[in-house]
Amino acid sequence: MSVNYPNGKQYIPNAAANTKIANKKKNESYSNRGMTLEEDLNITNEYYREKKIAVVHKKPTPVQIVQVDYPMRSAAVIKEAYFKQASTTDYNGVYKGKYIDFEAKETQNSSSFPLKNFHEHQIRHMEEVLLQGGICFVILRFTKEEQVYLLEAKNLLQFWDRMKTGGRKSITKEEIEQLGYYIPLGFQARIDYIRIIDTLYQLS
Amino acid sequence: MSVNYPNGKQYIPNAAANTKIANKKKNESYSNRGMTLEEDLNITNEYYREKKIAVVHKKPTPVQIVQVDYPMRSAAVIKEAYFKQASTTDYNGVYKGKYIDFEAKETQNSSSFPLKNFHEHQIRHMEEVLLQGGICFVILRFTKEEQVYLLEAKNLLQFWDRMKTGGRKSITKEEIEQLGYYIPLGFQARIDYIRIIDTLYQLS
Repeated sequence: MSVNYPNGKQYIPNAAANTKIANKKKNESYSNRGMTLEEDLNITNEYYREKKIAVVHKKPTPVQIVQVDYPMRSAAVIKEAYFKQASTTDYNGVYKGKYIDFEAKETQNSSSFPLKNFHEHQIRHMEEVLLQGGICFVILRFTKEEQVYLLEAKNLLQFWDRMKTGGRKSITKEEIEQLGYYIPLGFQARIDYIRIIDTLYQLS
Repeated sequence: MSVNYPNGKQYIPNAAANTKIANKKKNESYSNRGMTLEEDLNITNEYYREKKIAVVHKKPTPVQIVQVDYPMRSAAVIKEAYFKQASTTDYNGVYKGKYIDFEAKETQNSSSFPLKNFHEHQIRHMEEVLLQGGICFVILRFTKEEQVYLLEAKNLLQFWDRMKTGGRKSITKEEIEQLGYYIPLGFQARIDYIRIIDTLYQLS
């Protein structure tokens, strides 16, 4: 059974995460310090949904359930389960009728983005989505610099192929600056990727 | 915390489920007896993916993780978790660039389909998807009769409204026959919903 813990991070249940976000917002005047990319994207997607701009959700973490208890008069309790490797990307949804699909990753590196952040399954999924005419990309964050870029899946696939044919195992910062689209940190749509999609696909 | 066990069914891990499907296929000459709607749809979606017809996945079951153990030299074990109510539908993906989104439900009833099979959250999600120009529907199975129908979300929403304004809490079989699209059980694309989508939206 293929199991792993997706990002090596401590799991924060939703309620706690939300409180954390609320507190952060209050204490740090909406700065991004300490917020994960996932938290920023959740806020962005919630904003898109509320404003009827787009409907995008993060998929639940895939879990292989092994044992479930059914106590009398209370909810079923999962007593043994394992994290599974995702077979798709984490985010998908609809924008103006079009299918959009992306993965979001961050790195502590400053000079390059390691490709080990992606799995073979996810790369295959991106290829399938592109073939089906979907809009597919990755959102890459350089955590230390707090810089976020959108890179189209077609470019990521080229770098993946370069690695597979013996080339470097990362994308250089220069390559990302050249081919990707910088997303400045916003206020409500914190990572306003839809604006980039609009420009790229002339949807607005 | 809102928790529930999605369909009141015993959980079958993937590996076991696949074996079960394989055995069923062998022993019952591809008849549908005993196969769940989910199993049929997984086979259908796998076929669509292999043939590059569409890319549709079932979302993982949402789970609220409470406690995780990290044993030395082995995979993280989830020791306490609960089933959460889904905030979206179970299936989504891309077909010819368009976003498609659906929920699949079955009933033991013969004369009507109870609306309690759907949750308020899912209904809101369907409204949002339609507003964004996505293709949204439900797949309804009458288990005893082994009859499967595709009903567009716009129709489901009308029946939901009827219930909310004091009307009946189910859709009659006649209404489903009249407004829905019967999907005959197929061989490889067992529940060939894409064919209906093609007809409805002139995508082919």
